[in-house]
Amino acid sequence: MKKFMNHVDDFLTESLAGFAAAHSDLVVLNTEPVFVRRKVLKPGKVALISGGGSGHEPLHSGFVGYGMLDAACPGQIFTSPTPDQMMAAAKTVDTGAGVLFIVKNYSGDLMNFEMASEMSEVPNAMVLINDDVAVENSSYTTGRRGVAGAVIVEKLVGSMAESGADLEQCKAFGDRINKRTASMGVAFTSCTVPAARTLTFKIGDDEIEVGVGIHGEPGRRRAKFAPADAIAGELLTAIAEDLKPAADAELLVLVNGLGGTPLGELYLLFNSTRTWLEQRGLNIGRVQVGALTTSLEMAGASITLCVLDDEMKRHWDSAVHTPGLRWGV
Amino acid sequence: MKKFMNHVDDFLTESLAGFAAAHSDLVVLNTEPVFVRRKVLKPGKVALISGGGSGHEPLHSGFVGYGMLDAACPGQIFTSPTPDQMMAAAKTVDTGAGVLFIVKNYSGDLMNFEMASEMSEVPNAMVLINDDVAVENSSYTTGRRGVAGAVIVEKLVGSMAESGADLEQCKAFGDRINKRTASMGVAFTSCTVPAARTLTFKIGDDEIEVGVGIHGEPGRRRAKFAPADAIAGELLTAIAEDLKPAADAELLVLVNGLGGTPLGELYLLFNSTRTWLEQRGLNIGRVQVGALTTSLEMAGASITLCVLDDEMKRHWDSAVHTPGLRWGV
Repeated sequence: MKKFMNHVDDFLTESLAGFAAAHSDLVVLNTEPVFVRRKVLKPGKVALISGGGSGHEPLHSGFVGYGMLDAACPGQIFTSPTPDQMMAAAKTVDTGAGVLFIVKNYSGDLMNFEMASEMSEVPNAMVLINDDVAVENSSYTTGRRGVAGAVIVEKLVGSMAESGADLEQCKAFGDRINKRTASMGVAFTSCTVPAARTLTFKIGDDEIEVGVGIHGEPGRRRAKFAPADAIAGELLTAIAEDLKPAADAELLVLVNGLGGTPLGELYLLFNSTRTWLEQRGLNIGRVQVGALTTSLEMAGASITLCVLDDEMKRHWDSAVHTPGLRWGV
Repeated sequence: MKKFMNHVDDFLTESLAGFAAAHSDLVVLNTEPVFVRRKVLKPGKVALISGGGSGHEPLHSGFVGYGMLDAACPGQIFTSPTPDQMMAAAKTVDTGAGVLFIVKNYSGDLMNFEMASEMSEVPNAMVLINDDVAVENSSYTTGRRGVAGAVIVEKLVGSMAESGADLEQCKAFGDRINKRTASMGVAFTSCTVPAARTLTFKIGDDEIEVGVGIHGEPGRRRAKFAPADAIAGELLTAIAEDLKPAADAELLVLVNGLGGTPLGELYLLFNSTRTWLEQRGLNIGRVQVGALTTSLEMAGASITLCVLDDEMKRHWDSAVHTPGLRWGV
């Protein structure tokens, strides 16, 4: 295991310290308990809080800032954060309009966010993200997993909150986006959790894991290595079967790197993706290519489609200023 | 070799097609000969053109757009582009103020850009980037290699050109920035050039290559794996010995991922970097952390320091809108 680290026990602490120092214009790191919050809070705005196990950066800490999250609660690598982090974050970033928790569907995350939701004195609601169409239940999940669709929910609801919507509107918008968003990933290699010091799963030199989870959970099948067009086709077929986009639907396409795959390959995968969509007469309205929801250094990628409407397009295009996504400002 | 690709011969073509489609608001892809150019050219502005072997994305194509490059000429993976690409790009993007070629110091790149410079009918000048302090001469280089410092030169000179400076001023500014910029990298793993189908170099599970080049060229030494603080210290010592920053110098720090290293580790390496600098009383004026000059899927990173002055700070902060760097717009 070769990683930039000093002692394995300090990995998260030092990584977060570097993150907070690099982006001290945007975020503040709270250390006991650990959460990252927006430096400048906006009075009367619904506060958005997400979180989850670390190792998926820039998700979620990298999306704290103007137009997205007000706080992110990082757990240890691939380990749920705890309710005390969420409650402390909620108390700190609530400015009177309540808190929306944005939670990827993993049993630990959900349990802890629900506990925080019940125990917190701050009025709150929750959006559960379960965009991964690969499998119904998985290693750490009852129901579908939440993956890169989280980025889209955080961007769109973040924009709506910024524009003055109330907690109920933000919650309803988040639920609507989640229903219109579907993802599936593929892994070429495993990753290594620092504390485990060993590969999360074994995979042959000529094998891929189709439908892999972002913690290396098994997907739909272990397959022989295949061309990009075939991989894109398999992922998109599964996504489209779930999403059933109308013929005139306008899609946001997110080609997401899992951490160890370089940008040149992601653009190639996007090329396969757009060709597949164009052959079926489906319209691409917005595109995002990059490593936004990662699995440490795993080689692989996921494709996410989101069926846009005019309101969603407006909120996608609006200004955002976070370490991980930035435009318009 | 597992990569998102269809046929190895089509790798670059399909990757560039995906890139151009994803960023059709910003760039246009010319196919014969191959170059990427800004969609909207600015009449009377000095045009900036860079290029080099592919496999370092987002460098250089990802920096075509407002406030950086007007065109990028991508060669095949780790292979110099040809003079016809550069001459065609120059003819296309020149709007009357001439062209500045920004060239990383590799023998093939330099020879071909010099040929294009001589043969082009467009008035032109050249800035040669040689920021890598690791070794004096290398596999493909006489003198020092040009690496991630290219991003800084392209951003700062791009801003100056945008503000109306003439060709001579842009050339002088580029040379000045290059002299004030130094980099060094470290590799944990090799990468695989698609057409070669085999690892560029062999490295043990407990070894690192200190001072590696961005094509996997040998560095200063093959060392045993070491903590991030020790690696940062070795790179920074070499950089600081070269750069000799004054006690009151203000530094731009770029922690650059080589392609296979996840963001969480890059932030940890930045934490080691800032600690080292702070212990020596050196001031960090600006920070950039991310994979901007990569070596395909190589795991590793480089550190670049650039000694800022007020003019450079202003041009770093100015608006930029490219696929790879964007702020202020």
